[in-house]
Amino acid sequence: MVSDRLTQLAHQVTATAAPPYPFDPLSTAEIEATVSIIRKEHGPLHYNAITLYEPRKAEMMAWVANSENAPRPARKADVVTIAPGGKVYDGVVDLDNNEIAQWNHTPDVQPLITMEDLQEVEHVVRKDPKVIEQCGIVGIPAEDMHKVYCDPWTIGYDERFGSAVRLQQALMYYRPHPDDSQYTYPLDFCPIYNAETREIIHIDIPLVRRPINKAPPNNYHPAAIEKEGGYRKDIKPIHITQPDGVSFVINGRMIEWQNWNIHVGFNYREGIVLNNITFNDKGNVRPIFWRLSLAEMVVPYGNPEHPHQRKHAFDLGEYGGGYMTNSLSLGCDCKGAIHYMDAAFVNRAGAATTIKNAICIHEEDAGILFKHTDFRDDSVVVTRGRKLIISQIFTAANYEYCVYWIFHQDGTVQLEIKLTGILNTYAMNPGEDTHGWGTEVYPGVNAHNHQHLFCLRVDPNIDGPDNTVFQVDAVRGSGEVGSLENKYGNAFYAKKTKFTTPREAMSDYDGSTSRTWDMANTNKLNSHSKKPVSYKLVSRDVPPLMPKEGSLVWKRAGFARHAIHVTKYSDDQIHPAGRHVPQTSGEPSQGIPAWIESAGSDSSIDNTDVVLWHTFGLTHFPAPEDYPIMPAEPMTLLLRPRHFFDRNPVLDVPPSYARTPSQVASGSGACGCTKNDGSSVLV
Amino acid sequence: MVSDRLTQLAHQVTATAAPPYPFDPLSTAEIEATVSIIRKEHGPLHYNAITLYEPRKAEMMAWVANSENAPRPARKADVVTIAPGGKVYDGVVDLDNNEIAQWNHTPDVQPLITMEDLQEVEHVVRKDPKVIEQCGIVGIPAEDMHKVYCDPWTIGYDERFGSAVRLQQALMYYRPHPDDSQYTYPLDFCPIYNAETREIIHIDIPLVRRPINKAPPNNYHPAAIEKEGGYRKDIKPIHITQPDGVSFVINGRMIEWQNWNIHVGFNYREGIVLNNITFNDKGNVRPIFWRLSLAEMVVPYGNPEHPHQRKHAFDLGEYGGGYMTNSLSLGCDCKGAIHYMDAAFVNRAGAATTIKNAICIHEEDAGILFKHTDFRDDSVVVTRGRKLIISQIFTAANYEYCVYWIFHQDGTVQLEIKLTGILNTYAMNPGEDTHGWGTEVYPGVNAHNHQHLFCLRVDPNIDGPDNTVFQVDAVRGSGEVGSLENKYGNAFYAKKTKFTTPREAMSDYDGSTSRTWDMANTNKLNSHSKKPVSYKLVSRDVPPLMPKEGSLVWKRAGFARHAIHVTKYSDDQIHPAGRHVPQTSGEPSQGIPAWIESAGSDSSIDNTDVVLWHTFGLTHFPAPEDYPIMPAEPMTLLLRPRHFFDRNPVLDVPPSYARTPSQVASGSGACGCTKNDGSSVLV
Repeated sequence: MVSDRLTQLAHQVTATAAPPYPFDPLSTAEIEATVSIIRKEHGPLHYNAITLYEPRKAEMMAWVANSENAPRPARKADVVTIAPGGKVYDGVVDLDNNEIAQWNHTPDVQPLITMEDLQEVEHVVRKDPKVIEQCGIVGIPAEDMHKVYCDPWTIGYDERFGSAVRLQQALMYYRPHPDDSQYTYPLDFCPIYNAETREIIHIDIPLVRRPINKAPPNNYHPAAIEKEGGYRKDIKPIHITQPDGVSFVINGRMIEWQNWNIHVGFNYREGIVLNNITFNDKGNVRPIFWRLSLAEMVVPYGNPEHPHQRKHAFDLGEYGGGYMTNSLSLGCDCKGAIHYMDAAFVNRAGAATTIKNAICIHEEDAGILFKHTDFRDDSVVVTRGRKLIISQIFTAANYEYCVYWIFHQDGTVQLEIKLTGILNTYAMNPGEDTHGWGTEVYPGVNAHNHQHLFCLRVDPNIDGPDNTVFQVDAVRGSGEVGSLENKYGNAFYAKKTKFTTPREAMSDYDGSTSRTWDMANTNKLNSHSKKPVSYKLVSRDVPPLMPKEGSLVWKRAGFARHAIHVTKYSDDQIHPAGRHVPQTSGEPSQGIPAWIESAGSDSSIDNTDVVLWHTFGLTHFPAPEDYPIMPAEPMTLLLRPRHFFDRNPVLDVPPSYARTPSQVASGSGACGCTKNDGSSVLV
Repeated sequence: MVSDRLTQLAHQVTATAAPPYPFDPLSTAEIEATVSIIRKEHGPLHYNAITLYEPRKAEMMAWVANSENAPRPARKADVVTIAPGGKVYDGVVDLDNNEIAQWNHTPDVQPLITMEDLQEVEHVVRKDPKVIEQCGIVGIPAEDMHKVYCDPWTIGYDERFGSAVRLQQALMYYRPHPDDSQYTYPLDFCPIYNAETREIIHIDIPLVRRPINKAPPNNYHPAAIEKEGGYRKDIKPIHITQPDGVSFVINGRMIEWQNWNIHVGFNYREGIVLNNITFNDKGNVRPIFWRLSLAEMVVPYGNPEHPHQRKHAFDLGEYGGGYMTNSLSLGCDCKGAIHYMDAAFVNRAGAATTIKNAICIHEEDAGILFKHTDFRDDSVVVTRGRKLIISQIFTAANYEYCVYWIFHQDGTVQLEIKLTGILNTYAMNPGEDTHGWGTEVYPGVNAHNHQHLFCLRVDPNIDGPDNTVFQVDAVRGSGEVGSLENKYGNAFYAKKTKFTTPREAMSDYDGSTSRTWDMANTNKLNSHSKKPVSYKLVSRDVPPLMPKEGSLVWKRAGFARHAIHVTKYSDDQIHPAGRHVPQTSGEPSQGIPAWIESAGSDSSIDNTDVVLWHTFGLTHFPAPEDYPIMPAEPMTLLLRPRHFFDRNPVLDVPPSYARTPSQVASGSGACGCTKNDGSSVLV
């Protein structure tokens, strides 16, 4: 305790010497320390991941509640390594005590494929004689093998090869010129790569062959645009400036902004992790979410022809949304006054690496926050809003995901995802029928139907950890038109269905009832409405999983079978498709289905510490406008306070303009208010 | 023709002397000319509306196609007047020939209630002895009648009074102080006002009486906020500036921006009307929409107790979205470089009136337009987007609707609506059960459940007027898991169902198939995908009408029975609930159901000039955070080009940053690109 106090005091003196907050991601020094601790006891290893072993919730909640007296959670590292021969070891390293706390061989799993793993494959395929032979068959001479590229994907699961050998599939392309987009020149065959032996062990060759595309390149780089007539010249600049700086205060990785307090974490897997989100409600700091993250995703493609069924990437679980994160730069990805945070990882050899500017934090004007005019006299109030955006962008081979966690002043948390990048493409012969499984977006280029299904993990903490989830449907009143109770037939209400067990909570979206879900604290009622304080999930882009029940994807991506799952909180249940996702067969399904089965699907989730898992996304039928690079397609969901506050919590945001009826009547016209920037409005 | 040519020449000399474009709203001079023409032939009249009689489509299309040789459509005024005794006359005045072209008595209708009509009621209720008596009963002494307020609404339809007499219902409130929000003090009775005799003809009094609320005021004006501790001081200014001005060019009411060309109209009813929207596709000006507008809306409330069934305002058809429009001001409602347009109307006496700054036109940064990074070498392109926003805000008594028509560079048209303002409230006794029909948002204040259902009118012109509407559903392939055709069960495709008749086109939203609708030109195929050029309606906030089939609202708001209706184009079919909406019984239903019945519900809408009507919106169960003024709740839909362009149409938007693989390889690092503002990027 004393040392903790001393540390805290030291922290006040020099910010750089501050001890990491227990939620902070591991620093490069901590990653290196972890490796050196492991090296003392174990031989040569490939480091797959070293990330914060997150403090156990009970321990962390106790410390947050009383950091003077409760023990500070230890710094620990969660480690995944691969030993020679492909043996996987999962470990936990205690950094406070410089020791390995856990070290287990985990049989029959394949940890995710890192960027380093991916980078190797292209070099191997270019030299493989069977690949060279296949390239020759589709029309690429052997001397052009340097023009052959591949996007290496995890193999997903292929029953012919199982899970024992670490495999990748190489989606093959060709670039006439190094600056041409290879996605215009997909090759029709698919080599299978053994990551252990670094060789091609098989090539999937279609029955119908498709020679290399003869169409001219379809590029988007500056030289190509210049050749086509150049850039448009009619866009005048918009400058967004904050001369007095930002409105948020950052202390370490803790952000304070407009009553919000948020800890910004990051890991190789989920990318941004937001912890212990609270809202200062007139001096009362109220917990809302213990942890928010995008925890998994799956992108199933809809072409049933072999081997396209293998295209159903779990981009977070199989590659890592953190590992694939872009280094962002001012004015390009974000505008205004930006605060960046870096991300630290381990590389295969055990050295710490850093992605600079992995997280962008900035504010934006949010338009009208509220307005009302009295039609009698034009007395009015109009107030502009502001939003805080914590974002990252990650590139999954051809595609990019821009992830924006948006905090609004009124207590709303918004998750917006923009999809951009390049469609995954496959070869087609001139005049070939796509059978409706894809679209010819450019001559010879078949972009297959696909879905982007994300799994949002919400660990609610609505005025405390004991929460209950309700399904809310807009339904019509029971009386028929003309009946006494509903004479005019206009009755309707919000039907709330409590989820008491994980089985009940496996629920789907229903647009016909405008279905939403409340995370409520039934122990605390709103003082006016007498309804439980709650946060409502409002999500409208909620397609069902298109692969059928019992299909490969359905088995592997158990989380995507329903829009909603609710589980009782457990420290180690973070990854909805399991800890190690590549090459899982789905028999049995990992992650959510396994947890529910083990806890008992009829166990209680009523008024206890629960986690809500929400699968949302979109189904994409490509069109030529999406090619050769896709204009960003946005998608959004809201977590909104309902019966949480006693009153609109933004009344004290300075109005842009306000004039009361008595000011109108007295002709003073004075607005008696301040502008959003604190200066007075003169009328 | 000669005079037209002269006029056009004159136009080139002095812009102010320009003849109005045929779509232009009537000017104040034209409104006054209309009145003076009418006055010559008719006695004293109350002017309810004078608006542009829109040029007939065939005539206008011919002129747009060939304005040198086709006759210029005449300027005409569409007139609604009320003669003494309440007789309604609908007329058309030909302004080119200074004559009345049509003048008809329209029996059994009530034209909309104007702002002037609304303003009168409060004065009358305050003096009515029976209202004074009722105020006494709920606890307001006669000397406080100046503190009694009312929001006059159209009566909707009340079977006891029918349609013959022009009526309003007065939703009653009390203000302890002129600056207090009266919505905290709703009164429990409802006077019925006869607009002809200007007297209260009836008062609806509930069986259970509810004395005036004893709770303290709940205000949002500056003095109230100051008293509660003042405004927050931690918001730093964000400045948005366009030092070189805007990127759009306005010629009259025609806007040219980023390949778009749009005529911005406005009328008392729909507010903003966008006409002849085209997109310059590499020199080829392609028509997309002939006309877009928000054509109607209905706000049904869900409390079945009498007389709340009458609360189902058709805000556009019964009051006018144009009439209720706010005068906007820089920095308050909009930010940046703003172009405003005024709106001209007639008042009851026949004088022209103007709402200054009724329409706001401005640009905003739109974040990332597209991005892709090659994981091999970090070669990258990132391009920021821009959007053009044409907006208005209208106040419907307690509530405000902020309507944003947003044009994106990639060909997408977005309609965003933000709901703000104040909840409609009703009195409740302490401890009274709301029966789930409403929420106690503040002591003594019951905010009833309600829906906001908007009807978007889309007159598509996708490469010409002959268009066809398809319903598009994401569906699973037919083969079972394990079958030859769908071995892995992953097959799915876009099932397109052609609407050949209005009956087939009456369709609902289906979230489980991510349902969208395509407006397609089946006569023109995309050169790559070979699919019809089309625009897709992507709309996800699509609740069904909650009032039951056969109910009062269902009968009156026929347009809201389905998410989609499609009709064959007819010049006079603009208003989905009929031309004159107040006091319609719904027997028979006006507007869309009547048109479909008269055209024949099995008549062809295949490959012809069609109109698509889309009802969308949201169902609102109030909560305390919505009170005393509601943080803006957004809602959006998209009209997206699909198979319309051969390629991403924004490739020539200057990137913020670009670096090709060969630049990376050569280490030049030069990006060879320009920033969005036209300046070069130095790396």
